[in-house]
Amino acid sequence: MQELRIPRREHERRRAELLERATDDGYDGVVLFGGLNVHYVSGMYHLPTERPCVLGVSEAGSEIVVPRLERDHAEREEFLHDAVHGYFEYPQGEPMRRVAEMCDSLGIADGRIAADGDGSPARNGYTGPSLSDVVDADVGVEEYVTDMRETKTEAEVELIREASNWATLGHRLLQEKLEVGRRPVTIASEVAAEGTATMLDTLGDRYEMMDWAAPMTCKFTTGEVTALPHSVDQTNRIREGDNVVTIVKPHVGGYTTELERTMFVGDPTDEQRDYFEIMRESQRLAIDAIAPGVEYAAVEEAVVDYYEEQGVDHLTQHHVGHNIGMEGHERPFLDVAYEGEIRPGELYTVEPGFYVEGLGGFRHSDTVLVTEDGTETLTSYPRDADSLTVDA
Amino acid sequence: MQELRIPRREHERRRAELLERATDDGYDGVVLFGGLNVHYVSGMYHLPTERPCVLGVSEAGSEIVVPRLERDHAEREEFLHDAVHGYFEYPQGEPMRRVAEMCDSLGIADGRIAADGDGSPARNGYTGPSLSDVVDADVGVEEYVTDMRETKTEAEVELIREASNWATLGHRLLQEKLEVGRRPVTIASEVAAEGTATMLDTLGDRYEMMDWAAPMTCKFTTGEVTALPHSVDQTNRIREGDNVVTIVKPHVGGYTTELERTMFVGDPTDEQRDYFEIMRESQRLAIDAIAPGVEYAAVEEAVVDYYEEQGVDHLTQHHVGHNIGMEGHERPFLDVAYEGEIRPGELYTVEPGFYVEGLGGFRHSDTVLVTEDGTETLTSYPRDADSLTVDA
Repeated sequence: MQELRIPRREHERRRAELLERATDDGYDGVVLFGGLNVHYVSGMYHLPTERPCVLGVSEAGSEIVVPRLERDHAEREEFLHDAVHGYFEYPQGEPMRRVAEMCDSLGIADGRIAADGDGSPARNGYTGPSLSDVVDADVGVEEYVTDMRETKTEAEVELIREASNWATLGHRLLQEKLEVGRRPVTIASEVAAEGTATMLDTLGDRYEMMDWAAPMTCKFTTGEVTALPHSVDQTNRIREGDNVVTIVKPHVGGYTTELERTMFVGDPTDEQRDYFEIMRESQRLAIDAIAPGVEYAAVEEAVVDYYEEQGVDHLTQHHVGHNIGMEGHERPFLDVAYEGEIRPGELYTVEPGFYVEGLGGFRHSDTVLVTEDGTETLTSYPRDADSLTVDA
Repeated sequence: MQELRIPRREHERRRAELLERATDDGYDGVVLFGGLNVHYVSGMYHLPTERPCVLGVSEAGSEIVVPRLERDHAEREEFLHDAVHGYFEYPQGEPMRRVAEMCDSLGIADGRIAADGDGSPARNGYTGPSLSDVVDADVGVEEYVTDMRETKTEAEVELIREASNWATLGHRLLQEKLEVGRRPVTIASEVAAEGTATMLDTLGDRYEMMDWAAPMTCKFTTGEVTALPHSVDQTNRIREGDNVVTIVKPHVGGYTTELERTMFVGDPTDEQRDYFEIMRESQRLAIDAIAPGVEYAAVEEAVVDYYEEQGVDHLTQHHVGHNIGMEGHERPFLDVAYEGEIRPGELYTVEPGFYVEGLGGFRHSDTVLVTEDGTETLTSYPRDADSLTVDA
């Protein structure tokens, strides 16, 4: 039975690759302050707050600095570090002093250190010295882990594939609940609750939550609000004739996926249907344009050309998509200004869309894996207007 | 009828105070990259991603840089800025160039700028030049907004008071659903869904969501996991004899609150009851210790003295509490190393607790407002063991 987590040997490989990238650039070691970066390299997940959790890596191995309330968790054998340095609490435990001691223990305190930031982020009221304030080392800010996270391994893809399957259930639940007069957030919360229960009843004790998000999360907007692609307000009631633009993001083993659909409440007008078909065709074109070796820019260019031809290019508000994995948005971006070529193991949300003031938004999003010779779409839910129309 | 949002005049006051703090320190203006900082000063909330949203303030007024997909939202009249500078998308829109143009428009591009960070955070794959790379100005990193957010006005307290009322409902729903064999996250998701529906049915169209969190959020752990105060995994099933440690955090008008309870599934043992009463007394002592003019450190000292007397001081894992408001954790902290004196308008989670390996955690948390002459506890739910015990 498939384990729903990244295996330890993959964390060992990640740690080795990270160190190799750093030493190739003349560094003696690496210090990571970002919660997801620590998770990626060591497997140790946690809820980032004002209390720094900091991973150090050198030829001597890897060590971690954590507050008392993460210490027992940090010592779990699944996580890859050779020592845990505890401080009681922020600010009294002086976490950056412990970080300096860790650097000393790793033999990098007076060398050259690559860090993902020069200190712990100013989150939740945290303030403190920078890394370069507390060690004699030269500190360079490097984005190695962000770079490494761009392409996924088979183990990562399997977790995202599992998450993607559940996005289908989330959409079925959502569509069945669409009803004139209800508020999107009320429906979305029910989808999260029912979807979460079914995921856990199915996946059982293999499932471990690695952040505070429920296993299934769902958001959507309706009506004119859908013309604002990133509106966070999901309270206006569903009305007959509305466009609905959905998002369901299940989480499995520290990874997520994205499935979005444009739906109609009541039969769409000719105008809605015409816009919908242009959007749908643009997503097809975008998916077709993705392949290893293709320039990132070419995918958005294909969509822009088509939108110009159809006279809707002035209605777009964003590029075609973004990589996805531990975060809902990761780089590279399918953007005309993003340089480089698509590589196998990247995973894209493919979500070209446009937005008509007073009418609403038109956007599907699917999560598409780049394979050695093409693509595989991991998310699955009907894409045609008839299947996505509910009775008003 | 009470508006469930911060009034515009308060944003005007905040903007003026921010500028005054900066000019008092010899700066010409301020640039804010943090999403909550932008929200606090202008009222413009958004979902932070790789796309920078950046507010500038000077004697000339305030202006904002936003991506196309936030533009229509940013132009809402409720938000306090005099101009919106749009870029289409990151990276193609070169947001930091727009920021430089905004600084020019505000007359601060070659002066001295106070910023909450020297550039937009490296989130969601974002990378880009720092502010000091794109303007001639001297850039200083200052925490003015974090400082201003420490004490709350009456309007802010009213929103937190409203959120606190709903935390009671959330706990009632949660307690009624506690049942041997169920998983905490399944129950917590139902509480979020039912609580959210009731909040919206009650507050109606006055309620606007200002982040992606549902109006009511709920998390809890059960059994041995409660000995890990920040465990994010809420999947292990409830068993007879478990401690349960809860958290409910409703959101109103951009503000949150915190209510937590230790509950028992089945009659507690004498050991559980003894620990519970020590915890309960420590919370009473901590609340009693809070008053304007008292040192922050004194509150934790009172608890530590009591825990030493009771022989449980080695079981604590964190300090007594933290300020709360737009973020779930804010400074100041009720911590022995935090310097200064408690002021009216600060709001504390008061949550001394301790953790017994193999048995579980003991912690209540209430949100306590510091008034001119004492405190007012905003959250309300039974605190005694009998009221918090459910049948196994």
